[in-house]
Amino acid sequence: MKIAVLGTGMVGQALAGRLAELGHDVTVGTRDIAATMARTEPDGMGNPPYSAWAAARPAVRLATFAEAAEGAELLVNATSGDVSIAALEAAGADNLAGKILIDIANPLDFSRGFPPTLFVKDTDSLGEQIQAAFPQLKVVKTLNTLTAALMVIPAQLAGGEHSVFVSGNDADAKKTVVGLLESFGHTDIIDLGDITTARGTEMLLPVWLRLMGALNTPMFNFKIVR
Amino acid sequence: MKIAVLGTGMVGQALAGRLAELGHDVTVGTRDIAATMARTEPDGMGNPPYSAWAAARPAVRLATFAEAAEGAELLVNATSGDVSIAALEAAGADNLAGKILIDIANPLDFSRGFPPTLFVKDTDSLGEQIQAAFPQLKVVKTLNTLTAALMVIPAQLAGGEHSVFVSGNDADAKKTVVGLLESFGHTDIIDLGDITTARGTEMLLPVWLRLMGALNTPMFNFKIVR
Repeated sequence: MKIAVLGTGMVGQALAGRLAELGHDVTVGTRDIAATMARTEPDGMGNPPYSAWAAARPAVRLATFAEAAEGAELLVNATSGDVSIAALEAAGADNLAGKILIDIANPLDFSRGFPPTLFVKDTDSLGEQIQAAFPQLKVVKTLNTLTAALMVIPAQLAGGEHSVFVSGNDADAKKTVVGLLESFGHTDIIDLGDITTARGTEMLLPVWLRLMGALNTPMFNFKIVR
Repeated sequence: MKIAVLGTGMVGQALAGRLAELGHDVTVGTRDIAATMARTEPDGMGNPPYSAWAAARPAVRLATFAEAAEGAELLVNATSGDVSIAALEAAGADNLAGKILIDIANPLDFSRGFPPTLFVKDTDSLGEQIQAAFPQLKVVKTLNTLTAALMVIPAQLAGGEHSVFVSGNDADAKKTVVGLLESFGHTDIIDLGDITTARGTEMLLPVWLRLMGALNTPMFNFKIVR
C-alpha cells in the first residue's frame, strides 16, 4: 500500500520503518524538509536525528506533508498532538479526502512541565477534533496507548500478549487498520466503537506516564484480561 | 481490624462483606439509617437493596457515618464520588484524624447521561480533593479501576492475573492497604506514587466504561504487562 507517515519523530520513524519492512511504499511527511535533514542532534528522548535514521533506510522517502499525502492511499498521523491539525491543514484537505488516517497522536500539553496534562479530554478528544476538521478523512484512532517500539513489534513484550484499541466511525477503515495491526503482530485488537471512544484511550496517557515512572521503563502495555 | 465502610451500594456491600468474611470487625456507615433500611427496591444496576443484603450478614452493623467512623481504625470510602466529601464531613474530621482512608470513589458526573464524564480530572483528582479537605487522613486511592466483584475476589477472573494500583502520600498507610489487598487475593499491586497519581487511575474510568460496552460485561480488568 502507498502510505504517508506524517511526523519524523520516534513514532513516525517506528511506523515508517516497520511499514517499509513489511513491503509498503512509504513516504514520510514533514513541515520543512531542509530543517528536518539539517538536525544532527538526538531529540529530547535521546533518539537519533531523522537524517541518521533515514540514511539507513533508503527506501523511505522524505517529502512535504502535502507531497506525502497526495500520493498516499492511507496516512498515519505521527505528529505531536499540538501540531496535528496544522500538519493536516498543510497536507491539504484535497489530498486527504476519502482516505484513512491512522491517528496515533496524543493531546499532550507540556506547558506546565512533566507530567504533561491533556489539552482536550473527557467531553472531546484529539481524534474527534481531527475527524471534525477533516470530515472526508476516515479517522481511526489506535496505537496511542503504548510506546513506539511496541506499537510496531508487539512480540518484543510477553510474546505480544497485550492489547491495542481502535476507535473510528467507518467500519471498513477499521477493518483495514486492524489488518495492518495484525501484520505488525498484534493479536488482541479491541474495537471500542466510534471515534468518541478515543476520549477513553487518550485519557489513558496520564496513568501510562505514571506507570512509566513507577516501572522505570516504557516497555510495558495494558492487557485487557477478560 | 475495626473497619468502617462508608456507603451502602454495590461497592460498599462488596467491601464490607469481604472484610467481614476475612474476620474484620465491620461497620457500614450511611447518611440516614432509616432511609437505607426502608429501601426495598433493587438499585439502578439490579443489585438487591441494602436491607436484603444485610439480613444475610448479621455480623455487619449499620451506623451513621459519624458512628461508623468513630470506632474505626481504618475507613473505606465507597460512596459516590459526588457525595464523598459530604459523607466525610458528616463522619466528622475528629473521627477521621490519623486514620487510613481507602478511597475507591470515582468522580463520575452523570448529569449529561451515559457515559458519564469526570467532574475533576487531569490537573486534580477526587483523591487529592479528599486529602486536601482532610489533611489528617491518610488517603490511599485504590480499587477504583475494576468492578466491585473483582475488587474483593480477584481470583474470579484469570486466577487473579491482573493489576491494581495504589496512590498515596503515606508509605506506612500504603503498606497496610497493600496487606488488605493481598488478603483479598491481589497479587499484582502497583504503587504509582503519591496521591497526585490518582489522576491517572481516575482517568481510566472513561476507557473502562467504553470497554464494558464493547465487551458487554464488567468482568474484566487491566493487567500491566511488563
